[in-house]
Amino acid sequence: MKDVASAAGVALKTVSRVVNGEPGVHPATAERVREAIDRLGYSRNESARVLRAGRTSTVGLVIEDLADPFYSVLGRAVEDVVIGEGCLLLSASSSEDPARERELVRTFCARRVDGLIMVPAGHDHSYLRQELEAGTPAVFADRPPGPGLDVDTVLCDNAGGAVLATRHLLAHGHRRIAFLGDDPSIFTAARRLHGYRSAMGHLYDERLVAMRTPTPGSVRADLERMLSLDRPPTALFTGNGRLTVTALRALEGRPMALTGFDDFELADLLTPGVTVVAQDPAGMGRIAAELLFRRLSGEDAPPRHVTLPVRLVPRGSGELPP
Amino acid sequence: MKDVASAAGVALKTVSRVVNGEPGVHPATAERVREAIDRLGYSRNESARVLRAGRTSTVGLVIEDLADPFYSVLGRAVEDVVIGEGCLLLSASSSEDPARERELVRTFCARRVDGLIMVPAGHDHSYLRQELEAGTPAVFADRPPGPGLDVDTVLCDNAGGAVLATRHLLAHGHRRIAFLGDDPSIFTAARRLHGYRSAMGHLYDERLVAMRTPTPGSVRADLERMLSLDRPPTALFTGNGRLTVTALRALEGRPMALTGFDDFELADLLTPGVTVVAQDPAGMGRIAAELLFRRLSGEDAPPRHVTLPVRLVPRGSGELPP
Repeated sequence: MKDVASAAGVALKTVSRVVNGEPGVHPATAERVREAIDRLGYSRNESARVLRAGRTSTVGLVIEDLADPFYSVLGRAVEDVVIGEGCLLLSASSSEDPARERELVRTFCARRVDGLIMVPAGHDHSYLRQELEAGTPAVFADRPPGPGLDVDTVLCDNAGGAVLATRHLLAHGHRRIAFLGDDPSIFTAARRLHGYRSAMGHLYDERLVAMRTPTPGSVRADLERMLSLDRPPTALFTGNGRLTVTALRALEGRPMALTGFDDFELADLLTPGVTVVAQDPAGMGRIAAELLFRRLSGEDAPPRHVTLPVRLVPRGSGELPP
Repeated sequence: MKDVASAAGVALKTVSRVVNGEPGVHPATAERVREAIDRLGYSRNESARVLRAGRTSTVGLVIEDLADPFYSVLGRAVEDVVIGEGCLLLSASSSEDPARERELVRTFCARRVDGLIMVPAGHDHSYLRQELEAGTPAVFADRPPGPGLDVDTVLCDNAGGAVLATRHLLAHGHRRIAFLGDDPSIFTAARRLHGYRSAMGHLYDERLVAMRTPTPGSVRADLERMLSLDRPPTALFTGNGRLTVTALRALEGRPMALTGFDDFELADLLTPGVTVVAQDPAGMGRIAAELLFRRLSGEDAPPRHVTLPVRLVPRGSGELPP
């Protein structure tokens, strides 16, 4: 509002009068203020109710990709809580691009969302500090905020799940267990590598690890390289649902023990059924939204850090012998 | 605004002054107007820019279920167009409930969305007429609006696809082909039944048809009933992706030729691969959003009715002999 006052060459009080529809401003002056507001992109509250409560009854959700089954289930759970609270949900996909994420959040905040739910793409969320201090709460889901920011966060037990998956393959006699993970700059990918590595202990061999943004070509190449080693892997631990499906396709029916992180709809119908470490995307979305509405209803406790358990679902592929 | 004026006991011009922040209204009167606005839920435009252009740069999307892979892919495609146009997307799931759909649309319109994209749950969209006449365009995707409303619509070739699927099974020697469809009050389900029926011709037997909201139990019961007939089906045509997956699970590996409407991610990895009639949910979402933005940019042509082609993808299950 200060910038608007300065741009329009009027007192702060005059801007406030125009914005709040109070009398006592000359029409030409009011027009000048409105032009300045327009130019500076200052968004005013949207309705009479908002003028009172300072709320727009809108929540912004930034996720990685609405079309990914994991995130669409998470998004639907968020939506159910948000609409149940009488609010509406603005949602947008960052496509794993930190610049796009920042731009989406900026746009959401310019529209004065009451709060944000974020599956962050980047690692620097200092741009959020101003909004948080201005009273717009944010909850992070699936991945935590970058350094220096402490807000409500809902994660799954990534490292614990990777330990579970790896130990399951070890228990079925495997010693050469490969790990296919996503880009290690992604929090969940790094945590799952950590769990795999600690469960492998002295059996860990970096030649059995491949971590990058998966494409059918990259997964096929990584598998070919590992399978041509002197001591090739007899089992595979895939670091997320997308990787599991891509790896199954790349294996083209070649038998290999496999356990995947994340469940997926047809895992039980494949031959053999696919053993997975399942997390609960609907629960994650629901809890993230519930935490947000606790903040919106005035809760002032220190940030909460929720870690959701995962569970191993044996279906056949993870129980194949070496 | 008339209702507000009447509720606050003031002239229409006074309401307009308060809403537009013009001078000349006594503070107590302005407060009374704002209270009336509040009470009546009349939403004013959200920003100075909006006061000018009458636009909120927001599009509302009502779909059946954000967590359903078909609709999440459609939604993501809508989102990409909407954000590419510098707008934001409000999305909500109707859960196949016409009352919830109406309520969501009402809320979207109270927030003054620039336009609506609808996958309708109900058959009566007369409630939309007022919004359309007030200049808020709507585009229907996947299913058309109810009688009496003619707006831009993007459908797939439901009947043609069902003919394709049924003829494919006929061409592989089947004469007893069952059809499992969704609730026949759903437009797509009725059109697909129509296509199946016309392709079956004199081979049509209503005992081989089951149409209702699918659950694992209902699909299993329908299949058991059909398989216990004197002349049981040798092939199955499933009316959407959800039904295909549910039927595959209910069959528990019993061999039966099967062709499904809608592709799904792991169809090629099952044994045998699942033959489908594939439509293009991303294309449907993109085209629906593009049609909306043509209306928003002033296009005044008669409503367009786009029918997207479908294609048969043979993968093994639809080529099994009787």
